[in-house]
Amino acid sequence: MREVAVIGTGMTNFGELWGKSIKDIFVEAALGAIESAGVDHIDSIYVGSMSSGLFVGQEHLGAVMADYLGQNPIPATRVESACASGGVAFRAAYHEVASGASDFVLAGGVEKMTDGADVTAALATAADQEYEVYQGVTFPGLYALIANAHMHEFKTKRENLAQVAVKNHLNGLNNPNAQFRSKITVDQVLNSTLVADPLRLLDCSPVSDGGAAVILCPLDIAKKIKATSVRVKATSQASGTIALHSRKSLTTIDAVKIAAEKAYKMSGLKPGDINFAEVHDCFTIAEIVVTEDLGFFKKGKGGSAVAEGKTSMDGVIPINSSGGLKSKGHPVGATGIAQIIELYEQLTGQAGKRQIKNAKIGLAQNMGGSGASCVINILEAI
Amino acid sequence: MREVAVIGTGMTNFGELWGKSIKDIFVEAALGAIESAGVDHIDSIYVGSMSSGLFVGQEHLGAVMADYLGQNPIPATRVESACASGGVAFRAAYHEVASGASDFVLAGGVEKMTDGADVTAALATAADQEYEVYQGVTFPGLYALIANAHMHEFKTKRENLAQVAVKNHLNGLNNPNAQFRSKITVDQVLNSTLVADPLRLLDCSPVSDGGAAVILCPLDIAKKIKATSVRVKATSQASGTIALHSRKSLTTIDAVKIAAEKAYKMSGLKPGDINFAEVHDCFTIAEIVVTEDLGFFKKGKGGSAVAEGKTSMDGVIPINSSGGLKSKGHPVGATGIAQIIELYEQLTGQAGKRQIKNAKIGLAQNMGGSGASCVINILEAI
Repeated sequence: MREVAVIGTGMTNFGELWGKSIKDIFVEAALGAIESAGVDHIDSIYVGSMSSGLFVGQEHLGAVMADYLGQNPIPATRVESACASGGVAFRAAYHEVASGASDFVLAGGVEKMTDGADVTAALATAADQEYEVYQGVTFPGLYALIANAHMHEFKTKRENLAQVAVKNHLNGLNNPNAQFRSKITVDQVLNSTLVADPLRLLDCSPVSDGGAAVILCPLDIAKKIKATSVRVKATSQASGTIALHSRKSLTTIDAVKIAAEKAYKMSGLKPGDINFAEVHDCFTIAEIVVTEDLGFFKKGKGGSAVAEGKTSMDGVIPINSSGGLKSKGHPVGATGIAQIIELYEQLTGQAGKRQIKNAKIGLAQNMGGSGASCVINILEAI
Repeated sequence: MREVAVIGTGMTNFGELWGKSIKDIFVEAALGAIESAGVDHIDSIYVGSMSSGLFVGQEHLGAVMADYLGQNPIPATRVESACASGGVAFRAAYHEVASGASDFVLAGGVEKMTDGADVTAALATAADQEYEVYQGVTFPGLYALIANAHMHEFKTKRENLAQVAVKNHLNGLNNPNAQFRSKITVDQVLNSTLVADPLRLLDCSPVSDGGAAVILCPLDIAKKIKATSVRVKATSQASGTIALHSRKSLTTIDAVKIAAEKAYKMSGLKPGDINFAEVHDCFTIAEIVVTEDLGFFKKGKGGSAVAEGKTSMDGVIPINSSGGLKSKGHPVGATGIAQIIELYEQLTGQAGKRQIKNAKIGLAQNMGGSGASCVINILEAI
C-alpha cells in the first residue's frame, strides 16, 4: 500500500444555512478543498451523507455532486455509516489512493438537516428500527441510558457532563466555522430544558447544515508538488451491536475500543503518543465514554478528567479544539471530515487562536448511532 | 495493486418477499456467499443499498448487517449510487482487497421495496430532485424520452423494445432466482398497460425485494485455498449529468461509454473479446442504448441487433442470460451484485440450463438513475 497524505481542505460554516441547497453546500466545501490543495484535477469523489433521502429527497449524491462540481465523468460514490459517514468517506478515499487506483481523491461529507424533514425520525434510522425505534426510543434517550449507567457505575457527576459542553463551547469561540460561538456556564447547562434525563438541551449537539471536504493523494506526490501536507498514519473502522440492549456493558463502546486498537497497531503508536483529538461528542456523555475507550483515561475516569482540565486546550490532551459537535455543529454526514480538517489545521499550524502547541499527532474519532460503527484516523505532521 | 478474485456467491430469490425483513434478506445472501466461498472469516463488509431510509426507515445498514450476520466488530460500510449501489459495493471491496488492506471482503447488495413505501417517489430520488422530479417526471418518463429519441433518430422499431423483454423473459425461465419465470410475446408487450409512451408495463423492470453477495480475495490466496474462482480483469466507474436535459444527446449515455473505455483499457480487452454481458435493462430501451455504448453494436444498431438474435443465448453476444432486471427482478441495491453472480456462474460452468458455451470473459454493466453513474466490471474464467 502507498503512504497517503491530506493536502487540502475546505468547509462551509456549520449552522442553519437557509439560503443554500445541499448541492450548494457540498460544492462550496469541495471547491475550497481543491483550491486549497492547489491541484488541477481530481480522479474520484466520495460523498459521506447519512440520510439525504429522508432530509431532502435526494439520493445518488455521488453523481449529483460530481455533476454540480463540474467534475463528471469522474467516479463519484456516496458512502453512509450514519453519523460516521464522513469518516467512512475518508477511509474509502484512503483505500483508493493507497491501492494505486487513483492519485487525487476528494473525500467530502454533507448534510442538509433544516429543510423541514422530521429530523428526529430521520436520525433514528441510525438505530435499530425494529427493536429500538419502534419502542419509541430516539438518540437522546439512548445516550441518556448510557449517561445514567456511567453515573451509576463510576460516580460520574452530572456536572462533569456539563463541563464537556462548557469546554467545547469555549473552544468553539475561536472557530470561525462553528455554529454556536457563545460561552456557556455549567449552571446554564444544568438549567437548560430537560431532553432525556439526565441530558439537557445544552448536552446535545445541534441540528445543522454543513459540508466539508479534503483532498488525499500519495505522500510521495504530495512532497513532489510541495503541497502543505499531513501524513495519514492510520485509518481503522469497526462495527458493534446496532442496538444498545445487545451490549455487555452500556458504558463501553466496543466499536471504539476495537477501532482504536487497530489504529494504534497500524500506526505503531500508543494513546499517550496522541497530542490532541477530535472525538464524537454528539452528546456530552459520548465524549466522556469515548476518551476512556480510546485509552486516554481509565474506564470511569473520563468525567473527572474533564473536571481536572486534562482535556482543555492547555491540558494533557486537548479534546475537541474545534468546538466539537457540540459547539461547531453536527451536520451528520460532514462531521467526520470536519474532524479531519481540524487535525489538518492543527498539524500544519493554521489553527489560529485555537492552535495547540507542539501538535504533531492528532486522532479523529467519528461514530454512528449509539456506537454501532466507528472510524478512527490518526494524522501526523510532516 | 494485488490481483483480485471472486470466490463465492449467494443470493435470495428476487420477488415480493413478504415474509422477510431487509435484514433477513441480506443475511441469507451473505451467509450463502460465505458458505459458497468456504472461508472461515471475512475482514470487511460493503452493503450496496439505494434508499433503505425511504423504503424501510433503516439507514446505517453496514453496522446493522454486520451485527445480524454475527460479524461485528469487522468494518461494515453502506455505499450508494442509486441503482448502481451494488456495483459500487463490488468496486469498494475490490479496492480494499487490491490495496492490501484486507484479504476477504464481502460485497453485498439489498433492497426491500415492497414494504409499503411510495416506491416511485423513492426511486425518483435518483434523479435531479430540483430540476426533474419537481417538474413531475419519474423514471418511466425519463426512459420514455430516451426511447422516443432513439426511435426518431435511428428508426428503432417499437417492436425492438418488446423483443428485449421477450428475450429476457425467455432467459429468466431458466433462472431459479428470477421474479418472473414466464414466457411472454411481443404482442403481449405491445398490448400491456401504457406507462409512459412508448413504454408499457412489460417494458419496465419490476419492484422487487432481494439480496445478493459475493466474496472477494486476492487471486493468489484464492489459488492457495483452491476456491472456485474467477479473476476480476477490470473495474471502472464513471459519472454523468444527473439530469437528462443537460446531455448533449439523449441516445448516448456518456457515463457508460467512458466507464467502458476505462474498463477495456484496464483489462486490455476490446468489445469483441467479451463473450457475454449482463447489462442494466431497467427499461427495455436501456438495454438497447447500453449495448451500443459498450461498443457491442454501432450507435443506432442496438434495436436491430435484438431483432436479429445477436443478443440471444445463441447469438454473437448473449445479453442478460440471467433474465436481466426485466425478468429476474430489480431490488435496486442488489442488482449490481446479482449481475456479478451471473458472471461467476457462467464463468465457472455452474449456470445450468442457462450455461453459455465457451464463456471465458463476461462484462457486467450497472447504472444509476438515467445513467448519471455507471459501474462496469469485467470478469474472466481461470
